[in-house]
Amino acid sequence: MFKKFSDITRATATISAADPDLFQSIAQIWNTRTKPPGSLGKLEEIATWIASVQQTRGAPTLSFPSLRLFAGSHGITEMGVSMCPAHVNEQMVANFHNGGAAINALCRSNQIDFKSYDVDVHCPTKNFYYQAAMTEEETVEAFHLGWQSVPAFSDLFAVGEMGIGNTTPSTAVIATITRTPVETIVGRGAGLTDERLQQKTEILATALRNRKKELTDPLSILASVGGREIAAMVGAILSAADKNIPIVLDGVISAASASIAFELQPNVISKCIAGHLSVEPAHNAFLKHYQLTPILDLGMRLGEGTGAAVAMGVIRNAVDTFNQMATFEQAGVQL
Amino acid sequence: MFKKFSDITRATATISAADPDLFQSIAQIWNTRTKPPGSLGKLEEIATWIASVQQTRGAPTLSFPSLRLFAGSHGITEMGVSMCPAHVNEQMVANFHNGGAAINALCRSNQIDFKSYDVDVHCPTKNFYYQAAMTEEETVEAFHLGWQSVPAFSDLFAVGEMGIGNTTPSTAVIATITRTPVETIVGRGAGLTDERLQQKTEILATALRNRKKELTDPLSILASVGGREIAAMVGAILSAADKNIPIVLDGVISAASASIAFELQPNVISKCIAGHLSVEPAHNAFLKHYQLTPILDLGMRLGEGTGAAVAMGVIRNAVDTFNQMATFEQAGVQL
Repeated sequence: MFKKFSDITRATATISAADPDLFQSIAQIWNTRTKPPGSLGKLEEIATWIASVQQTRGAPTLSFPSLRLFAGSHGITEMGVSMCPAHVNEQMVANFHNGGAAINALCRSNQIDFKSYDVDVHCPTKNFYYQAAMTEEETVEAFHLGWQSVPAFSDLFAVGEMGIGNTTPSTAVIATITRTPVETIVGRGAGLTDERLQQKTEILATALRNRKKELTDPLSILASVGGREIAAMVGAILSAADKNIPIVLDGVISAASASIAFELQPNVISKCIAGHLSVEPAHNAFLKHYQLTPILDLGMRLGEGTGAAVAMGVIRNAVDTFNQMATFEQAGVQL
Repeated sequence: MFKKFSDITRATATISAADPDLFQSIAQIWNTRTKPPGSLGKLEEIATWIASVQQTRGAPTLSFPSLRLFAGSHGITEMGVSMCPAHVNEQMVANFHNGGAAINALCRSNQIDFKSYDVDVHCPTKNFYYQAAMTEEETVEAFHLGWQSVPAFSDLFAVGEMGIGNTTPSTAVIATITRTPVETIVGRGAGLTDERLQQKTEILATALRNRKKELTDPLSILASVGGREIAAMVGAILSAADKNIPIVLDGVISAASASIAFELQPNVISKCIAGHLSVEPAHNAFLKHYQLTPILDLGMRLGEGTGAAVAMGVIRNAVDTFNQMATFEQAGVQL
């Protein structure tokens, strides 16, 4: 289905936005429930938004929440931008498979269907300090994997990722798309010292200058300074949006993917919610640029989709409350 | 067991604090888990805190989370401090019983054992604009109901409440305990207009001046400007703390109860966590005074324990992650 960038552009052209009129009509239903209007705050907005994306004419559903995790390797790690060695990628892929990672525990805790994908972890992208990270073919292949990963009957979807060093390409993508000076949004990833944060900043700034001519459109940005798991998440986000499945974003890596998806098709913004606020500064730059408000702010910076998974518990609470609360009439409550 | 204020003072004298050394030793266990140190943010703190309060020597448990809701009526409503009529109290008690309120849906959604108590809803407290809201006997009776409501085998506990007009006594209690000018922290409750907010503020300021001589110690404050459900929650919070059960606070009414409990026995502070930040300004005054950081900020202002119930889902995520994650050794991940 997807062979070239033009195939992606064509497939995303028809993705619609959530319907604001439907949102408003569903929001009215909340006022029949036994509580002061608006008193459940964001829970009301969340459940209303879920129903408006699902286009279920009134009641949001949450019978098959799913999360798909993509793992990739990054050539730029040879520059020392991460505190973890790259061989951790393959070990963590096994950990996801065996159910021992944080995201496994959180998906079990919140009854989220989980699957992880090894996006050629044995084959790192090129080091984008010196050359484009991926070819068009490699980018489209990873995108395709992500596009196909979304279960057709899922009614809530989130993306997660793993890839030693991947805050570096993600920060490059977000800086480019949001036109933010990269020096102002570089973060510590898994825990860099001040000195190594400074090094990472200089490497990123130079790498972006080196790649400047390639940074012309969303898919070229993705190929030039992105990564395989980032491309897969772009595909997954667009595929879920195409299926009218509400999408929960995670931290800074998912934000890089979302920014590519949003530039390809701005309608997708209305089908995404920010699960949490990551500690990584580039994440906040992304949220501000697209005027997204995160559900949670728990000081998390792990990735894997962990912030999205915790947010999905809150979303379940919102949906259950909408669906299960008595109306004033049913309860005989008279104001 | 409880007949007089002195019985309460005696029972609370022996309540211990959570052990900070135990907290530190449990926190170390997180560093064996397959993730960068500290990368799960507040989830790590929460699970560590749960285990340190439970004194379970390492692993937090969450097999019996419970929430107890107390409903009461307030004589001060005759001054027009609330936008809802007082007969809603009895109708909502029936709604809780029938499972149709927001808190019922949220407790089902997060597998929280729920029970509601009618604390003499048919018998409002006295109007504290003119006289003390409750006698010592009435206060102790409500306290006793709350104390006895805590399941001995619960391993996470929250309080909820319902009572038309009860942001008024709660704001009075918090203003008094935290020595905050009441004019600066009066809120709209279920949704007062600007004009009626101004009226509520003037009534509260005058009522506090009228009661000034009675506001000498925590239990006298509770009797003078509190309410039956507030007294019951004081009992429930102290009883849970006495049993080493971690306590999740809800919004401004639970904060009023907690402030009385904290003044009676400061050790209790270390066994409580703030579930969320309410829209009511007095709630923020309480959180600042006791240096508590809320888990959630969702713009909620419903009461019933709803903020605490949503927070309990996040707490479950934290505990499950602590208990289920593989160690670096188990997963064969080498840094």
